[in-house]
Amino acid sequence: MTHRIAILGASGYTGAELVRLIATHPSMRIVALSADRKAGMSMAEVFPFLRHLDLPRLVKIDEIDFSNVDLCFCALPHATTQEVVAKLPRGLRIVDLSADFRLRDPAEYEKWYGQPHAAVEVQKEAVYGLTEFYRDEIRAARLVAGTGCNAATGQFALRPLIAAGVIDLEDILIDLKAGVSGAGRSLKENLLHAELSGGTHTYSAGGKHRHLGEFDQEFSRIAGRPVRVQFTPHLLPMNRGILATVYLKGDAKTVHQVLEKAYESEPFLQVLPFGALPSTRDIAGSNFCHLGVIGDRIPGRAVVVAVLDNLTKGSSGQAIQNANLMLGLPETEGLMLAPVFP
Amino acid sequence: MTHRIAILGASGYTGAELVRLIATHPSMRIVALSADRKAGMSMAEVFPFLRHLDLPRLVKIDEIDFSNVDLCFCALPHATTQEVVAKLPRGLRIVDLSADFRLRDPAEYEKWYGQPHAAVEVQKEAVYGLTEFYRDEIRAARLVAGTGCNAATGQFALRPLIAAGVIDLEDILIDLKAGVSGAGRSLKENLLHAELSGGTHTYSAGGKHRHLGEFDQEFSRIAGRPVRVQFTPHLLPMNRGILATVYLKGDAKTVHQVLEKAYESEPFLQVLPFGALPSTRDIAGSNFCHLGVIGDRIPGRAVVVAVLDNLTKGSSGQAIQNANLMLGLPETEGLMLAPVFP
Amino acid sequence: MTHRIAILGASGYTGAELVRLIATHPSMRIVALSADRKAGMSMAEVFPFLRHLDLPRLVKIDEIDFSNVDLCFCALPHATTQEVVAKLPRGLRIVDLSADFRLRDPAEYEKWYGQPHAAVEVQKEAVYGLTEFYRDEIRAARLVAGTGCNAATGQFALRPLIAAGVIDLEDILIDLKAGVSGAGRSLKENLLHAELSGGTHTYSAGGKHRHLGEFDQEFSRIAGRPVRVQFTPHLLPMNRGILATVYLKGDAKTVHQVLEKAYESEPFLQVLPFGALPSTRDIAGSNFCHLGVIGDRIPGRAVVVAVLDNLTKGSSGQAIQNANLMLGLPETEGLMLAPVFP
Amino acid sequence: MTHRIAILGASGYTGAELVRLIATHPSMRIVALSADRKAGMSMAEVFPFLRHLDLPRLVKIDEIDFSNVDLCFCALPHATTQEVVAKLPRGLRIVDLSADFRLRDPAEYEKWYGQPHAAVEVQKEAVYGLTEFYRDEIRAARLVAGTGCNAATGQFALRPLIAAGVIDLEDILIDLKAGVSGAGRSLKENLLHAELSGGTHTYSAGGKHRHLGEFDQEFSRIAGRPVRVQFTPHLLPMNRGILATVYLKGDAKTVHQVLEKAYESEPFLQVLPFGALPSTRDIAGSNFCHLGVIGDRIPGRAVVVAVLDNLTKGSSGQAIQNANLMLGLPETEGLMLAPVFP
Repeated sequence: MTHRIAILGASGYTGAELVRLIATHPSMRIVALSADRKAGMSMAEVFPFLRHLDLPRLVKIDEIDFSNVDLCFCALPHATTQEVVAKLPRGLRIVDLSADFRLRDPAEYEKWYGQPHAAVEVQKEAVYGLTEFYRDEIRAARLVAGTGCNAATGQFALRPLIAAGVIDLEDILIDLKAGVSGAGRSLKENLLHAELSGGTHTYSAGGKHRHLGEFDQEFSRIAGRPVRVQFTPHLLPMNRGILATVYLKGDAKTVHQVLEKAYESEPFLQVLPFGALPSTRDIAGSNFCHLGVIGDRIPGRAVVVAVLDNLTKGSSGQAIQNANLMLGLPETEGLMLAPVFP
Repeated sequence: MTHRIAILGASGYTGAELVRLIATHPSMRIVALSADRKAGMSMAEVFPFLRHLDLPRLVKIDEIDFSNVDLCFCALPHATTQEVVAKLPRGLRIVDLSADFRLRDPAEYEKWYGQPHAAVEVQKEAVYGLTEFYRDEIRAARLVAGTGCNAATGQFALRPLIAAGVIDLEDILIDLKAGVSGAGRSLKENLLHAELSGGTHTYSAGGKHRHLGEFDQEFSRIAGRPVRVQFTPHLLPMNRGILATVYLKGDAKTVHQVLEKAYESEPFLQVLPFGALPSTRDIAGSNFCHLGVIGDRIPGRAVVVAVLDNLTKGSSGQAIQNANLMLGLPETEGLMLAPVFP
Repeated sequence: MTHRIAILGASGYTGAELVRLIATHPSMRIVALSADRKAGMSMAEVFPFLRHLDLPRLVKIDEIDFSNVDLCFCALPHATTQEVVAKLPRGLRIVDLSADFRLRDPAEYEKWYGQPHAAVEVQKEAVYGLTEFYRDEIRAARLVAGTGCNAATGQFALRPLIAAGVIDLEDILIDLKAGVSGAGRSLKENLLHAELSGGTHTYSAGGKHRHLGEFDQEFSRIAGRPVRVQFTPHLLPMNRGILATVYLKGDAKTVHQVLEKAYESEPFLQVLPFGALPSTRDIAGSNFCHLGVIGDRIPGRAVVVAVLDNLTKGSSGQAIQNANLMLGLPETEGLMLAPVFP
Repeated sequence: MTHRIAILGASGYTGAELVRLIATHPSMRIVALSADRKAGMSMAEVFPFLRHLDLPRLVKIDEIDFSNVDLCFCALPHATTQEVVAKLPRGLRIVDLSADFRLRDPAEYEKWYGQPHAAVEVQKEAVYGLTEFYRDEIRAARLVAGTGCNAATGQFALRPLIAAGVIDLEDILIDLKAGVSGAGRSLKENLLHAELSGGTHTYSAGGKHRHLGEFDQEFSRIAGRPVRVQFTPHLLPMNRGILATVYLKGDAKTVHQVLEKAYESEPFLQVLPFGALPSTRDIAGSNFCHLGVIGDRIPGRAVVVAVLDNLTKGSSGQAIQNANLMLGLPETEGLMLAPVFP
């Protein structure tokens, strides 16, 4: 059976990545694509790399007949999303890729995003979309809120460790390196090739990055007490990929065992042998996350390194994984594409 | 039905690309992988990006039991290949990715590769592997010789035009820009990141590049008279992709029409609207080739630009396309993966 | 003696490159910097890489007291430039980096830039700024019009050959590869790192690139008859550098001798030994241009490859070279900085 | 007065960078260049970007007449260096860029470099070459041992803070991001463009990087007690530049004030305003180091980010800065070249 899919906000990178993945998904068929400012254009004009596909033209959202849609991916900017989702038909399954429904507490949303939440009732239905940890809720959900890409990377490294109580909760530090596609297709000076190529710099440093809201929410929930991590992201001259270097106080071998055990049956989470650390080059274009653990020369310190592709496992791949669950499909369907290297 | 596949020379980039593509191919299963110097290692050690796959260990070629193999991809260096292929079982279907069986005339082989052909009898069986132009021969072949990646790009731009007699055969010029993965995983100074990143230069200029042997052979065959093109390749700071700018004397609109007509039913060859020119970013990681045509301000001159991924359509994707034909499978099976962008 | 320098349009890449070069120029001192939209800001805010310098704040043009300025570099967009230059004091020496005064014939300006020339009288005074070929005129000039960066590269390869009559004027083809900084600091989608990194494509193909106006003007002037070259530029994933592959009909050895002879006393133009071809990596950040010549396997065909840094020899370095002449300084002063590699 | 300079090991990146910088140094002249395996070649053959310079041919070390040399830069691999330096004339001033004389305690050398020190007597004369902190000793030294590039970056961030006693010495963490030129021109698989471009990974993680020997030596000396920092380097897809993110426990404003005060008269060390953080793009090709400080949302935590060019301030620029002092020249002579951006 083929499920009919709509994608709202198809002219951005996460929208295009959804189309790329659905192109070879055996049980999904795209029936509607929206992009407000590019309505009327074909996807081949907006994204020539998709020109071999037979896709519907881009339309405005209100031109879509949702009665013909089984599941809708929403890849719109935050704030806009709340308005749009609130108006979608009640019976429609929705996987949202924005930040608008990730934080359960509307006060937290306002704190991190600088404006009041505009769809508080809808928020109550939303399930946090980190698949490996919310499978049952996602299967039953009408609305799944995809995680931040940085937030996903950090959580894959940390959740089992916090749950197992094997690390010091007062001293968790995430130094993260992110490729530029995570910033989207927006025209900003620091995203120009001439500005970024060959250089690196921090951004949203000092505890200002919005994905901290997700870390706070999830880690505190697991620990049963407030947990505040330190988090410094860096922008790197590469297009895809996130590498999170997570500094911990705890026994490195124990940390490795806990992660290995937690993920032993997970198809997308690969824990490397103790002492081996992963590279972003090995997951590009795929839904896999590689994790490695090493001890430091200073006893009692461990380093976990997690890598994933921000556009795939960090957003659109995760979204399809969640959609598979919501549609009763095998969780890995359409997502076993191997990474592209070199 | 699943066909059992062996890959000889699995530790190079084309070998790894074969594994990547077969990973999601519904009718192929890898049963043997060879790599002489790395025999005993797992693929995950050699190529960590493939670590999610359940693959046989690397062995030496003579450890492989070919009676359990339906088709063998041979991704070995040239010269070595002739010796190896000559010793393979007669009943085995072989798709070779090296240069060793591309040139029908052993004298041409010796001219371009600097040594006598060591398997002249086997050469007689070899079919030139440019799928779109040799389908029937490939279906019936025991041994298919994959084309050079540059040679494939130039031929997609030129073959229909030479056949149609719409261009001046005395004045064909191919200025080609190639990513670095075409040079393989070999340790050469000019392939270091520090040497190549941020710069470009020619290589094998002046009519010395070996793929000229293929151009000569194929274009002369189509034209029924000797055709000698001018060909200057450039190495670019990118990993995947070839862009060939082909300068012609002929009417641009006619050139466009001939290409459009020639490829109208081809699943992998996409001719853009007249005046639009393609980018390598739009085919990376895929088996697609995009072609564009534009006229120059000087009347009677046309420019054809063709792009493809050297590792996919230029070698390993082409190899699987040929293998599909040889095994009686749909030609596009496993190859409809969308390009990866950005 | 220190000459007092103003730079109009200091917030773009060529403006910043002027500042970089003047920073270690022993006879120039910057006394005024303009940037209309960024007036009031410090250069360190606009270009943090210049923060070690003691520079005047950015102001609007009409805030500058030109009576204290000996020479003014004008790095403004075309069209704007004509208006600004027409209003500058008559006694001020000006080196313009825009396209506004490069074409002697206002009709040609209108043809290539799509609008009538707005300062026809000023145009009459302008000297074309390709230093090595207009030294005497530049020394005496009030207004020097810097060349296009692509136009400079092509001319270094071709001018002596056209003058010597050793190539076929009907068959000159320039396939050019350019880094992204030539497009300036403008916010365009195709200049984003995510769009350009790892890919290449043509731009302004088919005889539409505006630098063709300069080629036409200069080559026809040298030949004493109309000369029309074919010119296809490509954008490459690198920041600095242009590589022009120039295809000619003529004897390669003769071509090499003519270039070697023409440039034997030129400090910035380096002709490589016959058969050696240059790389953009070897001139980045410098005012040098490397040229190489090779013959093709097809007799009677030659290939000249010229490389230079678009921001230095192609614009701001050239501008300072011209300013040196206008100010009676040694031509190479401040410009002998070695390229930066790797 | 011009000082006569020899460079041993001129065929590597740091050797070439020395030549680049000396090319425009007003008081130094290169009289001898050695490169054992490339003896007999010209520098233009080994490094075409230096072809405009009139340089002596490469020779073997024992072909150099050191009686004509005032100062010798030694850019040889470690271990080799000890043997070579031990045999150089006693009267020769030497600036060594290798690791061989950085560690005062030969036991530490053996611990980090895996072999006994072979020139223990010479070691006693060596002065650690972090210019800003050892000026007087360097002026008087016969042998200066240049620092590791990573070690320099970390020390610029940390030395004044340790000296001032404003941070917790038990909790210093350096997460470092380094460009690939720091690894030299060696042919290693992970340094290939195809392997590194577009990806990032850690190296020498877990407290194994040899520059930790320098951190231990210097920080413990300043603190007057053992200090052990945690240090994780990452290799980035860029050629030049190091960015060190240093995580501290201490008051961020105090940290900023201490650094600002410490470096207020330093020509090469630029402390940004509080809250601003630097980018490697802004120091490439220069001898400048930019430092920034920010507080975290977790009270009592500070982040210092330091950037410098590993080949310039991190090695060859530092070496010339030290040579200037040893020769009685102004410390900044020849080193005020502005960074190259973009």
